[in-house]
Amino acid sequence: MAVLGDNRYGKDGIRLVQVVRDGRRHEIRDLTVATSLAGDFDDAHVVGDQSAVLPTDTQKNTVYAYAREHGVATIEEFAMVLARHFVSDVAPVHSARVRVEEHAWQRALVDGSEHDHTFLRHGPQTRTTEVTVTAEGTSVVSGVRDLVLLKSTGSEFSGFLVDRYTTLAATDDRVMATSLTARWRYGVLPTGFDQAHANVRDVLVSRFGALHSLALQQTLWEMGRAVVDGGADQPDVDHVELVAPNLHHVLVDLEPFGLDNPGEVFVATDRPYGLIEVTVRRD
Amino acid sequence: MAVLGDNRYGKDGIRLVQVVRDGRRHEIRDLTVATSLAGDFDDAHVVGDQSAVLPTDTQKNTVYAYAREHGVATIEEFAMVLARHFVSDVAPVHSARVRVEEHAWQRALVDGSEHDHTFLRHGPQTRTTEVTVTAEGTSVVSGVRDLVLLKSTGSEFSGFLVDRYTTLAATDDRVMATSLTARWRYGVLPTGFDQAHANVRDVLVSRFGALHSLALQQTLWEMGRAVVDGGADQPDVDHVELVAPNLHHVLVDLEPFGLDNPGEVFVATDRPYGLIEVTVRRD
Amino acid sequence: MAVLGDNRYGKDGIRLVQVVRDGRRHEIRDLTVATSLAGDFDDAHVVGDQSAVLPTDTQKNTVYAYAREHGVATIEEFAMVLARHFVSDVAPVHSARVRVEEHAWQRALVDGSEHDHTFLRHGPQTRTTEVTVTAEGTSVVSGVRDLVLLKSTGSEFSGFLVDRYTTLAATDDRVMATSLTARWRYGVLPTGFDQAHANVRDVLVSRFGALHSLALQQTLWEMGRAVVDGGADQPDVDHVELVAPNLHHVLVDLEPFGLDNPGEVFVATDRPYGLIEVTVRRD
Amino acid sequence: MAVLGDNRYGKDGIRLVQVVRDGRRHEIRDLTVATSLAGDFDDAHVVGDQSAVLPTDTQKNTVYAYAREHGVATIEEFAMVLARHFVSDVAPVHSARVRVEEHAWQRALVDGSEHDHTFLRHGPQTRTTEVTVTAEGTSVVSGVRDLVLLKSTGSEFSGFLVDRYTTLAATDDRVMATSLTARWRYGVLPTGFDQAHANVRDVLVSRFGALHSLALQQTLWEMGRAVVDGGADQPDVDHVELVAPNLHHVLVDLEPFGLDNPGEVFVATDRPYGLIEVTVRRD
Repeated sequence: MAVLGDNRYGKDGIRLVQVVRDGRRHEIRDLTVATSLAGDFDDAHVVGDQSAVLPTDTQKNTVYAYAREHGVATIEEFAMVLARHFVSDVAPVHSARVRVEEHAWQRALVDGSEHDHTFLRHGPQTRTTEVTVTAEGTSVVSGVRDLVLLKSTGSEFSGFLVDRYTTLAATDDRVMATSLTARWRYGVLPTGFDQAHANVRDVLVSRFGALHSLALQQTLWEMGRAVVDGGADQPDVDHVELVAPNLHHVLVDLEPFGLDNPGEVFVATDRPYGLIEVTVRRD
Repeated sequence: MAVLGDNRYGKDGIRLVQVVRDGRRHEIRDLTVATSLAGDFDDAHVVGDQSAVLPTDTQKNTVYAYAREHGVATIEEFAMVLARHFVSDVAPVHSARVRVEEHAWQRALVDGSEHDHTFLRHGPQTRTTEVTVTAEGTSVVSGVRDLVLLKSTGSEFSGFLVDRYTTLAATDDRVMATSLTARWRYGVLPTGFDQAHANVRDVLVSRFGALHSLALQQTLWEMGRAVVDGGADQPDVDHVELVAPNLHHVLVDLEPFGLDNPGEVFVATDRPYGLIEVTVRRD
Repeated sequence: MAVLGDNRYGKDGIRLVQVVRDGRRHEIRDLTVATSLAGDFDDAHVVGDQSAVLPTDTQKNTVYAYAREHGVATIEEFAMVLARHFVSDVAPVHSARVRVEEHAWQRALVDGSEHDHTFLRHGPQTRTTEVTVTAEGTSVVSGVRDLVLLKSTGSEFSGFLVDRYTTLAATDDRVMATSLTARWRYGVLPTGFDQAHANVRDVLVSRFGALHSLALQQTLWEMGRAVVDGGADQPDVDHVELVAPNLHHVLVDLEPFGLDNPGEVFVATDRPYGLIEVTVRRD
Repeated sequence: MAVLGDNRYGKDGIRLVQVVRDGRRHEIRDLTVATSLAGDFDDAHVVGDQSAVLPTDTQKNTVYAYAREHGVATIEEFAMVLARHFVSDVAPVHSARVRVEEHAWQRALVDGSEHDHTFLRHGPQTRTTEVTVTAEGTSVVSGVRDLVLLKSTGSEFSGFLVDRYTTLAATDDRVMATSLTARWRYGVLPTGFDQAHANVRDVLVSRFGALHSLALQQTLWEMGRAVVDGGADQPDVDHVELVAPNLHHVLVDLEPFGLDNPGEVFVATDRPYGLIEVTVRRD
């Protein structure tokens, strides 16, 4: 007989732009917010009784009202105050998950100077956070998506397993590129989320760049390890997930045209793509 | 100290079109395949030793070769033979997951008759399957995505929880629309996957249409329940997940123009959207 | 010295769903509308004086109000009434262009029968129209986009020009596929736009299917010619534009795996793609 | 009777990444190229005779071979050498259009220093060019797309035409944002295309930022005028087209929650959007 299993509901794609008018020099925060609630919602499903259901429209309203009431110091703090509200103030809610993406803008140069209120969209990389609040506590998993990285050398791939279907040639010098999604869970919440995020991101990029790569797997492991092992300036991270498509760059065969191609002209391909998923955690 | 956690790798976005030339009347299968392997790959990460790694390029080759050698009777059978191959024939692999999406085509009418070798793309709904093979056995989770459904009446939403941030009015007649993603796990593998898939899909659509809806949550529960409880003609399903964005249709206020709007003119909105996730399982 | 050249402005992406409640059996029309106006708008640009400018927000409101006041018998008639309104009733407007896309839905089968108010989205092909009204008259250009067609045989490509950079082999049997955009201008407005549209679309699909193709160029010419030359049942069309990406299907080389591949297993590629643009007009 | 009208064909979506290995410090160029040829191609359509047709596959090969033979100093020079080749060396071709988009990357910081061979994708803005070569000469139209700009103040919209369908309120302070597409034709080809492009782009951004805007139309006119009127450091431009969606930011009504909203919390909306198209040319 059928029974209700896991269920949750919320509002996704809530677009919020906040203008911080601190004198003449404005700042903007450009966010996409998603809320999702779990709790005592069996009757909403099984009987159709909505009396415990806070409408997703209300969740959206709450996001906008909280932006005004509490501001958006960092996306992590904003997500925490929202998630705690849903769990604390809405009785049927046992667990609230709030995801926030921050779309980056930079101050525009106008006639050579940084302008007070003109901004230029800066992408594709997007800062993310996912905050989950339950009776047990608060989890903050921050990250980045669409961090597109490329190394034009310093990457090889050889010595792999060969079977009947293998045609790939080993290479000691290839282009390695990925559009990284990384998510790390803070073991201890940092005092400054902006700085913590910047630090982790810098470690990820630096390891990607500095390591001579034997495989994308190895690179991801080293990136994750550097984040978890941290150090003096680094936030306390107990877990990092890395999802990395291998954006293949194929050397073009120019021999039919009487030309060599010493690692210079490549086709960037979309599909198919390798997809490597690695989790590194603190033991 | 950092340790390697869960990891897997494979090839995604493998596009395969198979032409079945059974006499003059052709059939086509249009698939996107993704393979993903897990197993003894610690050294690939930690030491950079790739000797246990079957390249993702080889996985792609295997998909094309298997299409020729084994054919694609159904996407479920094709995914099973592929996943079993990776686990059985590639020693380091402990678990293989193969996802297949089938893009629908219909035979074109040419001068009024169904044509032998001309086809018309039919979407957006896409049939999916995810097969996972481990030493313990085989799991087949089939489904559909982008099944876009709309009811122009027979849906209400009222009696919900109201708090300080609630502005939504109750309604006893609204448009309800969703782009459904459904995934169901077969408890017993059906003898005919095409028929089983069609049956489940029909139950989902029929319940969506027939039920007078008190909320999308209730509708999804009833859809899932009908699949799990099954019946004489229905496959054995022990678990179904439904993910349903609520594609809001907002009644336009025409009063400023001296016009009424008795449930006739709506704005279809993209964002934000409610997102309801429900699992129904057999007890 | 700089002078203002061509300029126009309007509202794009106006999403309108109309429910036609003719008794218990509903119909729905699902449209995306774009308006664009040209006229006496020099001062809006050069001086910043907006007194001649009907806001794009008003244009959007007009679309919704007209849907209620005039209904949407066909997208062509709806676009005509809107475009004529802007030119006739808004003094500064000399020319109005209204584009409408109609997204297709089909009635859902619920427990085996067509349901009165449940619908299933049907794509990807989309019916389009572009109506332009000026003092000189009304032009109606209807069409279709994303009409994805594939022939699994009956297509060759050989005898082409060869130069130093040519590596392509001639073929006498290939898969030919395209995602067609077609736009045709009615010379005489048909009495029934739905029927006229269906007729032209059927001719396009039928010629694509029936013709043994020597090249996509030839196929497009024959498709366009059949529309312009028309016939007893066909609407009067004086001009048709066809834009057709060549969606290449590449035969997979299975020889490395000891397998042949007699026109059976293909890679469907996205990029790069041939792009053929052909206009056929009545002399 | 049907006759063949305008026609052209080519290859689109050619992805080319060039690694310039000038010592240890690499540079990369990341391009998407599209070729399109017009000429004596009547027989290809009407008779199906392909003997004058240079395959689109050959056009693609030519792009890669020319990247190796001639390099990509700037996208404009690369497009010119390609377009001239097609017109000069392929007899049936009368006119060749080559479009190139350049996707931006920046050098990554690795452990605080710019790295020799690690790069970070930088978007969304994309540099574009379209070169057309005919017997009459060469036209170079360069530009930018997806240049997303936002002003958080310094923009008003009032005094507009009001009719029966107008509900928009005038405003003396709003957020103005757009995703600009600009294309400018060089009257005299500049000696340095990189510098010329940077100069025009800076003028566009600076005028957008510096001007107190009475309407997007006025802003675009002033941006275009500044480019065409140029000056000592500016390239000779005889024509600029600006296409600018008005990315509406709607002030959220927080009154129901007992909150004011002094230009601080906005919904960023996708659809519908105003669309303003302006051409500015030299008299």
